[in-house]
Amino acid sequence: MSRAGTAMANDPTREYFAGTDRDRAAFEAGIKLGSIVHQYVGSPLTSATAPSLEHAIEAATRVQPLVERVRVRIDTERMRIRGPYKYGVLTEDLLDVEVSVRVGNAQAVGALRYVPELDYPLMYLKEVA
Amino acid sequence: MSRAGTAMANDPTREYFAGTDRDRAAFEAGIKLGSIVHQYVGSPLTSATAPSLEHAIEAATRVQPLVERVRVRIDTERMRIRGPYKYGVLTEDLLDVEVSVRVGNAQAVGALRYVPELDYPLMYLKEVA
Amino acid sequence: MSRAGTAMANDPTREYFAGTDRDRAAFEAGIKLGSIVHQYVGSPLTSATAPSLEHAIEAATRVQPLVERVRVRIDTERMRIRGPYKYGVLTEDLLDVEVSVRVGNAQAVGALRYVPELDYPLMYLKEVA
Amino acid sequence: MSRAGTAMANDPTREYFAGTDRDRAAFEAGIKLGSIVHQYVGSPLTSATAPSLEHAIEAATRVQPLVERVRVRIDTERMRIRGPYKYGVLTEDLLDVEVSVRVGNAQAVGALRYVPELDYPLMYLKEVA
Repeated sequence: MSRAGTAMANDPTREYFAGTDRDRAAFEAGIKLGSIVHQYVGSPLTSATAPSLEHAIEAATRVQPLVERVRVRIDTERMRIRGPYKYGVLTEDLLDVEVSVRVGNAQAVGALRYVPELDYPLMYLKEVA
Repeated sequence: MSRAGTAMANDPTREYFAGTDRDRAAFEAGIKLGSIVHQYVGSPLTSATAPSLEHAIEAATRVQPLVERVRVRIDTERMRIRGPYKYGVLTEDLLDVEVSVRVGNAQAVGALRYVPELDYPLMYLKEVA
Repeated sequence: MSRAGTAMANDPTREYFAGTDRDRAAFEAGIKLGSIVHQYVGSPLTSATAPSLEHAIEAATRVQPLVERVRVRIDTERMRIRGPYKYGVLTEDLLDVEVSVRVGNAQAVGALRYVPELDYPLMYLKEVA
Repeated sequence: MSRAGTAMANDPTREYFAGTDRDRAAFEAGIKLGSIVHQYVGSPLTSATAPSLEHAIEAATRVQPLVERVRVRIDTERMRIRGPYKYGVLTEDLLDVEVSVRVGNAQAVGALRYVPELDYPLMYLKEVA
């Protein structure tokens, strides 16, 4: 059994969950994306400061339950610098995130990116198994 | 076919999703809970103002994709009023949330509540099918 | 002496402050505006839910130190409803806020509103004395 | 005249402000502290990730109007690591912030730190002139 499998077998939260490990993997991927958007949207931003925010969001996501891997990019090309003080703020549309969650032998990859065809920052399941 | 089923059949986001309607229902329930915690934690609070915040969080959650039902309670018994100005702030531990999401014929109910045995504000899948 | 004057005379935080009551009134008005923007921006929103959010923000602001009066309006005319699920989010540009703070005999009124000439959501001191 | 003085003389926001440069310096210091608390409180955290969050908050504060200098420390000694996944979240009590704002020839230094005697995370004017 993999280390992840062992970890989950001992996970004291397990008894609270309905459904399968796969259900939980999808659920946890959703939590991470919802958390990122609503924690950091509104943060002041320039091209120069975007890397420090990307790094902080990645670090804060990795400490959360069951996260295997996370990548956060802020699309500074689409950022709107404005006003007399020439800075922008983080909006949902600027975020390009991918987060992978493992629960036992199940895995889910959640993604957030602005989809031009929908004019919407979509959170979706990119992989689940 | 139910109205929800019809709605999803026409949902233009559907093609972006891996997995089943059930996977997505679990994922969307996670998004809603992660969003609530990270949007509103830190909000100043007293027993008198808790109902207005509960109401605003419920309203903001209902406008999000695929939400069927949401209930938010702030446990003002556990709230910590302190300092010279006698108010508290919303913490994760005070939130008691249940949100139901429907995707086609699938449904997931996600919950957030402080679990004393774990000393942890747990987000979990209460139902999924 | 007014009740506000008496309250401040006994305020145990007073010894920590440099400057005058007027300085503090300006400072506290700034705190309240910065807090509002960064707590609630990103919250999901429609015209129908705006009143509940206005109400919750007002209530959360009133419990904070030294606030005399607060008014929050969300400009739903300027709100951008979009995407397949037809909702918006609170942005700084939608907020129209006025908050009055009293410290002893000093008072400051801070305001936040989108100023078209600057293309900027400006926080400014509307009155201070 | 100093560069800061010249900058303010040309600042197009100036006409919107009541009061003096000193009033505005105090006001802007308050904005920055309120913004920091309400943007980042709730962020997941461990001792290992605290430096990345400190760095991101400092960078996001420096891009805001009139900031001369900012220092953010997260008191990881007081952080509460808990639950089955062994992480904490940023609370107001963990923040130790000092931000200096200049408006023309006026300057204000605002600070936020947990004050044990008050059992309160106090935001105060440390210097204003």
